[in-house]
Amino acid sequence: MDCIFCKIVNKQIPSALVYEDPNFLAFLDISPANKGHALVIPKQHYETYTDLPDNVLKELAVVTKKVAEAINKSLNPDGLNIFMNNKQAAGQIVPHAHYHIVPRFKNDGIRFEWPHKKYDDGENKVYAEKIRNSMQ
Amino acid sequence: MDCIFCKIVNKQIPSALVYEDPNFLAFLDISPANKGHALVIPKQHYETYTDLPDNVLKELAVVTKKVAEAINKSLNPDGLNIFMNNKQAAGQIVPHAHYHIVPRFKNDGIRFEWPHKKYDDGENKVYAEKIRNSMQ
Repeated sequence: MDCIFCKIVNKQIPSALVYEDPNFLAFLDISPANKGHALVIPKQHYETYTDLPDNVLKELAVVTKKVAEAINKSLNPDGLNIFMNNKQAAGQIVPHAHYHIVPRFKNDGIRFEWPHKKYDDGENKVYAEKIRNSMQ
Repeated sequence: MDCIFCKIVNKQIPSALVYEDPNFLAFLDISPANKGHALVIPKQHYETYTDLPDNVLKELAVVTKKVAEAINKSLNPDGLNIFMNNKQAAGQIVPHAHYHIVPRFKNDGIRFEWPHKKYDDGENKVYAEKIRNSMQ
């Protein structure tokens, strides 16, 4: 498996380690949005959020909280962005599911926004219904 | 409680509902990044990710997967951004913890990036150690 995060898990590639347990790993992003920007991954390889089995997803959520709390305590940011990009079109670079935790500071110059789109009249109900009807 | 999402939970304010169960709700963002942009919230009011009790966090992760799968199935996007902004400095507008799920399409013009910062030599290890030492 030629996955850079799997290689970090296997210690074939070094990382600035933040947390490790038998199933999860957290380490610093090498190209941080702000210093302290951490990534949290399951050691087992899955590509995206929806590929993660429920039990992995649940534990990942709790490990991510643990790391987020430690970032809050140690770096005292004014806020946190916690996110997972899924697939290249969404900005995922390494195809091994990972949460980003970005410590944010007032006026840090990061823009995490986008132009808002508008629904035509009643179109939002159509979209909501489409999604609801695809629920399993 | 003068929280707009609590009012959506209590049906005092209408929403384009995507999912509801006794503890969670999903509905469309009224100012979507792309059409189908959904929000997933616990019905109980908590402000941020780190305020969520572990059991709520775990179930929220699974409900979010369910909604993400339904968005994939119904809208067939090329990718998904799944994220929670925590506190105003991180772009949180409504102070009731919520996951965004944004369907993404190739060349949809949304930029979800930022200038990368650089660590000085060895500085990443210092940051990692600070965070590790604050782990509870």
